[in-house]
Amino acid sequence: MINNTNPDTIVALATPSGIGAIAVIRLSGPHAIGITNRVFKSRDLEKQASHTIHFGTIREGETILDEVLVSLFIAPHSYTRENVVEISTHGSPYIIESIIKLMIKEGARAAKPGEFTLRAFLNGGLDLSQAEAVADLIASNSSASHQVAMQQMRGGFSSELKALREQLINFASLIELELDFSEEDVEFANRDQLKQLILQITRVLTRLIRSFEQGNVMKNGVPVVIAGKPNVGKSTLLNALLNEERAIVSDIAGTTRDTIEDEMTIGGILFRFIDTAGLRKTEDIIEAKGVERTHEKMRQAKLIIYLVDPLQSTDTIKQQTEEVGQLHIPHVTVVNKSDLLSPQQQQELATLNPSFISAKNKEGIDELKDEILRKVNLHKISTDDVLVSNVRHVEALQKTRDALERVLYGIDNPVTSDFLSMDIKQALHYLGEITGTVTTDDLLENIFSKFCIGK
Amino acid sequence: MINNTNPDTIVALATPSGIGAIAVIRLSGPHAIGITNRVFKSRDLEKQASHTIHFGTIREGETILDEVLVSLFIAPHSYTRENVVEISTHGSPYIIESIIKLMIKEGARAAKPGEFTLRAFLNGGLDLSQAEAVADLIASNSSASHQVAMQQMRGGFSSELKALREQLINFASLIELELDFSEEDVEFANRDQLKQLILQITRVLTRLIRSFEQGNVMKNGVPVVIAGKPNVGKSTLLNALLNEERAIVSDIAGTTRDTIEDEMTIGGILFRFIDTAGLRKTEDIIEAKGVERTHEKMRQAKLIIYLVDPLQSTDTIKQQTEEVGQLHIPHVTVVNKSDLLSPQQQQELATLNPSFISAKNKEGIDELKDEILRKVNLHKISTDDVLVSNVRHVEALQKTRDALERVLYGIDNPVTSDFLSMDIKQALHYLGEITGTVTTDDLLENIFSKFCIGK
Repeated sequence: MINNTNPDTIVALATPSGIGAIAVIRLSGPHAIGITNRVFKSRDLEKQASHTIHFGTIREGETILDEVLVSLFIAPHSYTRENVVEISTHGSPYIIESIIKLMIKEGARAAKPGEFTLRAFLNGGLDLSQAEAVADLIASNSSASHQVAMQQMRGGFSSELKALREQLINFASLIELELDFSEEDVEFANRDQLKQLILQITRVLTRLIRSFEQGNVMKNGVPVVIAGKPNVGKSTLLNALLNEERAIVSDIAGTTRDTIEDEMTIGGILFRFIDTAGLRKTEDIIEAKGVERTHEKMRQAKLIIYLVDPLQSTDTIKQQTEEVGQLHIPHVTVVNKSDLLSPQQQQELATLNPSFISAKNKEGIDELKDEILRKVNLHKISTDDVLVSNVRHVEALQKTRDALERVLYGIDNPVTSDFLSMDIKQALHYLGEITGTVTTDDLLENIFSKFCIGK
Repeated sequence: MINNTNPDTIVALATPSGIGAIAVIRLSGPHAIGITNRVFKSRDLEKQASHTIHFGTIREGETILDEVLVSLFIAPHSYTRENVVEISTHGSPYIIESIIKLMIKEGARAAKPGEFTLRAFLNGGLDLSQAEAVADLIASNSSASHQVAMQQMRGGFSSELKALREQLINFASLIELELDFSEEDVEFANRDQLKQLILQITRVLTRLIRSFEQGNVMKNGVPVVIAGKPNVGKSTLLNALLNEERAIVSDIAGTTRDTIEDEMTIGGILFRFIDTAGLRKTEDIIEAKGVERTHEKMRQAKLIIYLVDPLQSTDTIKQQTEEVGQLHIPHVTVVNKSDLLSPQQQQELATLNPSFISAKNKEGIDELKDEILRKVNLHKISTDDVLVSNVRHVEALQKTRDALERVLYGIDNPVTSDFLSMDIKQALHYLGEITGTVTTDDLLENIFSKFCIGK
């Protein structure tokens, strides 16, 4: 059982490994200050206030390992709610290793991945969804993914769930009471009020579940497929969007046989652009597999950029875009090589409301990016917006909603209190899994093992 | 001109780049606290004491960039002697970049490599040899190189030079005075006392110059060449010493054609082992070049491990080791494949006082390591030992000694005061270059550009 009664003191490098100007070694636990004090020559750390910094040397016997700054955080005023010491050393791997070894010799233990944050959770400093957000925050690589993680770390949606959960617990206990008096057929829990509460909770759940679609793409990036017939310039467009030579381009139709992906940020949102093999019937087995994969990628995309060559007839182009339309996925029709267009063609194609670009000359690319942003229709989120971005959370939210729908059915139909009680308890269980009120060792192990060491 | 009057406020990431639990962004300069205060939401940093830590959020407008810990160091109680702020953030490259950009928008400037340490030097926090030791300390990768750098950073040898320099300045001014009264032929500077002082300084200089040999190998590693006829097992021995498969081994004589180097620490001292091509006359041009390179490496080595095959006649072996002896470089004769030795051979070879090993079976390797340590004869240094490890320093020390020897000559021979004065001034100049009392922009540029950014 993962718990934190009688904890030991853990130590780890908290900054990235490698050579740098400084490194920070972190200790947490009841003996963090005592262990440091034994090898730190300066003032007596046991007598200093929390949130103060002290200059001195770390010594192993007579040998000075380094001149350091020691920062003190006295329980419960620390990240882990335990005594925490942060030692800022010169950024030499040799020094870092020597000091960590010394701390272990003095009684500390090497921390496991995520163990500092696990302790913060176990000691009530963070709930589970906030702890998960810490890892998301560190991994965030765009304005959008950063904001989603920050909002979650600051308790955005767990505080919302917590309030609803407490009201539900209230009803659960009243219904439990009914069970005790089941022979007397009393109703302590007002069924109308319960129904109102559950409808209210279900509305919140539905909103949160719906937000996952946006939260997820903000965290992981919006998949955008670039599709079209062979040789219309898809790879050239990918390169123009990324502004680098990512894909190999040539005049030979079928140059791209596998899908090529790369990411870029537009308007603070991460996009994953996927260049695909051209769509045509082919005898070449490898190319045929590429075309098959293109179809698969198109079905998974949030947006399809359908690229056409203006040298085809307008009818052919219209027919192609209609086929794409049948996938029921947002798409942008883009006419490439627009410098070759006659005014008449331009007029004929206008009914498709396309973007005109020249991928080769990098013309129309900025306008296309604006169009992409409009089509995916992700409004910029603010710190106040509550978005779910974690698969584990959305699954728990769905299971909660299912259980509550059974409760609603039970209220309106002749179902006994013990069935009602069971479904409410199940809803509470799933809600609790999100914030960590209900946990299992496997769940914690699974979450925290993905953290880096030192966090 | 590099100076620090009217300095701006600089900012840089102080921890290694990459993903980690935390990162530290450092600001230094008159506006470090003011700039941070404008974007930090918590208490008013301008009103806090030095060496205190404050939790809060960094905001760009309404957007929270991160929850951070801010450490304050108020001038002159900081590394640079200026106001310094260290911001401990979550270790996300996106967050780090956003915060540094924000600080630059608020008026800070991106720091150049080594600029924090340059400021520490310009503001008198460190002398130049100490500043150089900071870079050595960060790069240190063995107990010995670490101790040499630590001793230098803590001012070990600059304080020794400083005292001598001050006495010399005393005499210089007295001799200057003589020049003012040159018509009257007076001697303010007692020539005997001056001579005694210069002899004393020269003794210290000679000791420091001699220490360079040890200081240098402790910093850069002791080069040890493994030599011997083809196929005696040199690469197998390298692998056995390193305890890994570093070199390709085969039964074919001449497998190693270029030299292979790798490092390992024995008894806290870094050794650079150099596996060489076998010594034989060869028609193969590439192999011949390898043999030539082997001879070159042997001449540069601090120690030669001369490996012999016991299946040769004892006379042949004796002749080979005599040839190695003529290089006048410490060497160890090592008999490989000792499991194949007859008792008689063992007796015959004993006069060479060799180490017996089996590289293949990894027998006798630890004993060989002990023998290597004995032969290079580097005593373990303590924190008090003063060693010179920097080429720039040893060159300045040599130039100082040369100038002082001219002064000594001048005292004992009929040389006028102005020549004495000139030579003493030159000695002072070179001494001053070591600690940075005398500097040029080129020198500073050259030293600090080798630092990492953020230090």
